Amino acid sequence: MAGSSFGTIFRVTTWGESHGPGIGAVVDGVPAGLPLDESDIQQQLNRRKPGQSRFATPRKEDDRVRILSGVFEGKTTGAPIALEVLNETQRSSDYSQIASCYRPGHADYTFDQKYGFRDYRGGGRSSARETIGRVAAGAIAQKILDQLGIRILAWSSQIGPVAAESFDPEEIENNPFRLPDAEAAQKAAAYVESMMQAHDSVGGVIECRITGVPAGLGDPVFEKLDANLSKALMSIGAVKGIEIGDGFSVAAANGSANNDPFIIEGNQIKKASNHAGGILGGISDGDTIRIRAAIKPTPSIFQPQDTVNRDKEPVSISIKGRHDPIVVPRAVVVVEAMAAITLVDSLFLNMSCQMDRVTAFYKNK
Amino acid sequence: MAGSSFGTIFRVTTWGESHGPGIGAVVDGVPAGLPLDESDIQQQLNRRKPGQSRFATPRKEDDRVRILSGVFEGKTTGAPIALEVLNETQRSSDYSQIASCYRPGHADYTFDQKYGFRDYRGGGRSSARETIGRVAAGAIAQKILDQLGIRILAWSSQIGPVAAESFDPEEIENNPFRLPDAEAAQKAAAYVESMMQAHDSVGGVIECRITGVPAGLGDPVFEKLDANLSKALMSIGAVKGIEIGDGFSVAAANGSANNDPFIIEGNQIKKASNHAGGILGGISDGDTIRIRAAIKPTPSIFQPQDTVNRDKEPVSISIKGRHDPIVVPRAVVVVEAMAAITLVDSLFLNMSCQMDRVTAFYKNK
Amino acid sequence: MAGSSFGTIFRVTTWGESHGPGIGAVVDGVPAGLPLDESDIQQQLNRRKPGQSRFATPRKEDDRVRILSGVFEGKTTGAPIALEVLNETQRSSDYSQIASCYRPGHADYTFDQKYGFRDYRGGGRSSARETIGRVAAGAIAQKILDQLGIRILAWSSQIGPVAAESFDPEEIENNPFRLPDAEAAQKAAAYVESMMQAHDSVGGVIECRITGVPAGLGDPVFEKLDANLSKALMSIGAVKGIEIGDGFSVAAANGSANNDPFIIEGNQIKKASNHAGGILGGISDGDTIRIRAAIKPTPSIFQPQDTVNRDKEPVSISIKGRHDPIVVPRAVVVVEAMAAITLVDSLFLNMSCQMDRVTAFYKNK
Amino acid sequence: MAGSSFGTIFRVTTWGESHGPGIGAVVDGVPAGLPLDESDIQQQLNRRKPGQSRFATPRKEDDRVRILSGVFEGKTTGAPIALEVLNETQRSSDYSQIASCYRPGHADYTFDQKYGFRDYRGGGRSSARETIGRVAAGAIAQKILDQLGIRILAWSSQIGPVAAESFDPEEIENNPFRLPDAEAAQKAAAYVESMMQAHDSVGGVIECRITGVPAGLGDPVFEKLDANLSKALMSIGAVKGIEIGDGFSVAAANGSANNDPFIIEGNQIKKASNHAGGILGGISDGDTIRIRAAIKPTPSIFQPQDTVNRDKEPVSISIKGRHDPIVVPRAVVVVEAMAAITLVDSLFLNMSCQMDRVTAFYKNK
Repeated sequence: MAGSSFGTIFRVTTWGESHGPGIGAVVDGVPAGLPLDESDIQQQLNRRKPGQSRFATPRKEDDRVRILSGVFEGKTTGAPIALEVLNETQRSSDYSQIASCYRPGHADYTFDQKYGFRDYRGGGRSSARETIGRVAAGAIAQKILDQLGIRILAWSSQIGPVAAESFDPEEIENNPFRLPDAEAAQKAAAYVESMMQAHDSVGGVIECRITGVPAGLGDPVFEKLDANLSKALMSIGAVKGIEIGDGFSVAAANGSANNDPFIIEGNQIKKASNHAGGILGGISDGDTIRIRAAIKPTPSIFQPQDTVNRDKEPVSISIKGRHDPIVVPRAVVVVEAMAAITLVDSLFLNMSCQMDRVTAFYKNK
Repeated sequence: MAGSSFGTIFRVTTWGESHGPGIGAVVDGVPAGLPLDESDIQQQLNRRKPGQSRFATPRKEDDRVRILSGVFEGKTTGAPIALEVLNETQRSSDYSQIASCYRPGHADYTFDQKYGFRDYRGGGRSSARETIGRVAAGAIAQKILDQLGIRILAWSSQIGPVAAESFDPEEIENNPFRLPDAEAAQKAAAYVESMMQAHDSVGGVIECRITGVPAGLGDPVFEKLDANLSKALMSIGAVKGIEIGDGFSVAAANGSANNDPFIIEGNQIKKASNHAGGILGGISDGDTIRIRAAIKPTPSIFQPQDTVNRDKEPVSISIKGRHDPIVVPRAVVVVEAMAAITLVDSLFLNMSCQMDRVTAFYKNK
Repeated sequence: MAGSSFGTIFRVTTWGESHGPGIGAVVDGVPAGLPLDESDIQQQLNRRKPGQSRFATPRKEDDRVRILSGVFEGKTTGAPIALEVLNETQRSSDYSQIASCYRPGHADYTFDQKYGFRDYRGGGRSSARETIGRVAAGAIAQKILDQLGIRILAWSSQIGPVAAESFDPEEIENNPFRLPDAEAAQKAAAYVESMMQAHDSVGGVIECRITGVPAGLGDPVFEKLDANLSKALMSIGAVKGIEIGDGFSVAAANGSANNDPFIIEGNQIKKASNHAGGILGGISDGDTIRIRAAIKPTPSIFQPQDTVNRDKEPVSISIKGRHDPIVVPRAVVVVEAMAAITLVDSLFLNMSCQMDRVTAFYKNK
Repeated sequence: MAGSSFGTIFRVTTWGESHGPGIGAVVDGVPAGLPLDESDIQQQLNRRKPGQSRFATPRKEDDRVRILSGVFEGKTTGAPIALEVLNETQRSSDYSQIASCYRPGHADYTFDQKYGFRDYRGGGRSSARETIGRVAAGAIAQKILDQLGIRILAWSSQIGPVAAESFDPEEIENNPFRLPDAEAAQKAAAYVESMMQAHDSVGGVIECRITGVPAGLGDPVFEKLDANLSKALMSIGAVKGIEIGDGFSVAAANGSANNDPFIIEGNQIKKASNHAGGILGGISDGDTIRIRAAIKPTPSIFQPQDTVNRDKEPVSISIKGRHDPIVVPRAVVVVEAMAAITLVDSLFLNMSCQMDRVTAFYKNK
């Protein structure tokens, strides 16, 4: 089916495989008049790209984006924006061994089951390079959110067993793990280093906070804002768990502690606490949206693994190539992108929720 | 926006408020020729309905379903199936106090922010009664899955701080908590009883297992099967967290332990373990799908709470009425329903994924 | 598939068969705060219902609508509005003959081919009674358009070979054909009368004009406003042709005559003519939208017809029951409803087309 | 809004402007295993491209397509297929005059109204070059239809006032008008020549026949096959009218003549005539689908025209550049493409319409 699009009226469609000619996205439903140039997008792609520390794949991917449509004289026109990144440093030979084998933790087997065969080069469509399209599209969404005073910030709150114990937003981009805690970053470095030496890989947790969100976004039943954020984040390859607000710790909590009392603060209605994570009944309440995603350890590890091949024979596989021992820091950028895309769609879908506001919109025109 | 529908080609649309004339669903995209009568649906509604133990609201809701369309001579016709449950035991007076107040943990404030006003009777559209439409629709989905040998089973794996420590599927419907562990059920009873006496409420965790799923369901990018299951479950009112397979525990795991080795078992490709929870790269791998949902404690508690009213005045509120001290056991039925709806849509969307199979389908016709 | 819904963010889902318990619609995406009661809807259903002249079926269908959700204290709440009309005067015995036969011009054969069997009573899902849901939903759309100063007016411009030659809007509801020309109405009466005596049926053309539409609705490529209006009208059972503006007569026209010159009128940009029918490049230009639909003669005729049955045997069929000799006048109401639904969805989808207007919307909030 | 996509599970998204870097499409939902290479697509683009007769624009557009994803070793993989045609012979200077003027019959004014400004170069997004994406995507759809024995053939049935009076399918690609009648082609040549000398332009009618369609495609209510075909064709720039089967001539017909009797032919159920155009109740009946589209004369004409500019001043405009005096012959290729896309989506959506066939599909797997 057509599963490569996300969003209803702000809609992102991505395409491309790891080792094909390129990767791209078409972003449709962008309002006209938004200032946009390639550097806005390049900046986010640069944050995502590999080769930036010794804890990431040494692959050199330049990932230069080109805008092919939808922008005229520095502003969006309302037409779909096509974004393209050509693939440059493919080494298909690295992947020839896996053509017939099913790598544990990868989608090789399920692709063969679904499609009958697969583009085995570098994971094909399920490669982490697929997220280039998401990050590029997310950069446009973030430009829109900027205009509305909405800010998305994500970071690694846990790297393997090492959890951040303090929160300094300035620190996030200062260490290779995007941890907001310099001390934890040092411990994480030691831990990941030891795992790399053991030819193993590491997971973690990403936390995302969204501030400046107006109350009222999301819908009460199936299109709850938290439901859409969950889908958005769970659609990122390595994510295995999602929490909104207090998440799983609500299970053992009592209502008296978990309910957030409403209070008046400077003539505004606020909440005294934010266990809910900024969403009540599926609708944003104006408070900070808090969401967390669990990231599994990279399935590509350099120790030999037992598996089977397409002919149903047991084989031992040793994955070669250049793989991240941990994808969490790079996935932080993808989480921000998907959150941004989801928010923008919610903002646009919300505009017709009150008759008076619809009437005012068309009368003022 | 139109947020009351779920699914693409098997699509459920629900309607109705707690204290309006009724609650219902329209289920579109049901294949013709499925045997169906009202008892198939009633059976699931009965599992959901309140008043079945001292740990649930004593409200007596009969919740008789009527099929209004789409079934002829005991079989579905391919036309949309309209399902209706009339509301019978509304006591609107119970809710008059909350018309202008914002109950902590409820959607009162966000509804007012989004829509300008709200139907304040019993939570209106955000009432737990909204799930009647989901359960009724889910019963049809489950009939379809039955024909394909797919079985969905959910239960409470945790009630407040009490976790199930053994798993006896026969036990699930034997205790008021839907715990698969009789001993844990006794502990849970004592715990919930004590919280009721403290005028407080309790949360928990629901686990869901889906067996018999063919490999190949779901799509690699945005329409991952786990992404859609996450949205489906996160769209249930009280859910605050979702885990697929090992969920958040993958964060501290290493790739060597988290990867599931493929093996040959009886000439079939299987996995030696199932950390992935039956989904790889967003596509079902033929193994059991495992998914968990964290449920928050009921926000309606009987102790006085500080909050504010619409006029931005601080007030103290004491919620009256008949509320569940814990919704987890009843939510088990809703989780099964949403999982079933999601699976059926995935099954139908998957039918055109290989050209050979499309050709065979139309040639054999 | 799920084919019973229309619209993206203002979405109508209909259900029901001719001889089931009832017919209904769920209207989702209605803005909160719109004044609405059952009489708003009943008024349109009354215009559609049969038995109002000797040129329509003498069936007495009362078609009383009930609102089951989404309205509170006389205003819409933003929740889906469920509308229901119970079927009352079914005479299933009238239809027993056709259970195994394929009536020419009807959907009996195609339903059997698609679904394997069918609800043969009164046409089942393909009965003209299905349009009750459309008209009920359209009444809500028209209430929204009223608030925005948009007016939809449809009429019969041709009844069989008799074309209206003058246009008096006051006349439309004065004659049983909804012709805007009293003289043509007399000729039409004589013509239809003669066809009824010949046990035959009559078609016609419906014209629809929409005024007060702001410029800017519709999108440039696939979601052109005229494309959506065409789908909306072509989805009405008996429609076999659609024209926008000058329609088929453009084929023989030249550009110099067909182009509408822009002019200044009272400091406003207008068009000196309206060959385009109020839509340029798929987007409304602020001028009157003109659209025409060709309606086929009722396929149910009272003379014997040759056909075949399910067992592939030739049979002769004489349709009994109470059928309209012409559906055009009643279809006028359905055309208005579908145009209204399409317009409202376009209005809502258009709200995010300029960044400045999005920003103003959220800043002014 | 996101208006650049068409289809539900076979979904085409197009992007690109006349004078941007390129034009493209992303085709999602293509089954895996379909043989496909660039020549399959190039062949259709070549049929569409200009400069092939003296009755078409002398612009030399090479329009070389490149496949950027979704194909591996000569077969589709199930991943989205990105198609790209770079723009090469843009002469932006040709269009500088129209930057502030509103060309009659063009979308300049409506774009400014909708978006606040526009990419004025060569029509921008509403340029006829936008149809490159449609034709490229349609070529893939046609490859799928080939495998299923479904054939789409379109031609010009009328060029200005000159109608084809005979039908020789071999003749269609033999003359510059795609008329199936050599004699009419000569008359058309004389007529178009005379209009070119008068600095004027010409419209026409395109007819499309689809054979080999299995009975059962389309849905009974809003997703009627004819409704979707109408939307598909009406979404092509210059189309102003659509007819299915007998189209507007049904208005004056009687039921006894318009009904198509069912007959037995070689143990198959057939229709003795095909006034319905192969669709009954919105569902294909197995007969030839007949659809016609009215095409308006090219709005770009070389004689001076009165219009206004953005500052609301009357101006006279003389359009320069290289424009087709008639777009009908090239639009034939676009009609085929849109019909093919619609059919493929209908085929895929139809696969889950009977429970027995769903069960057989998954059991046989």
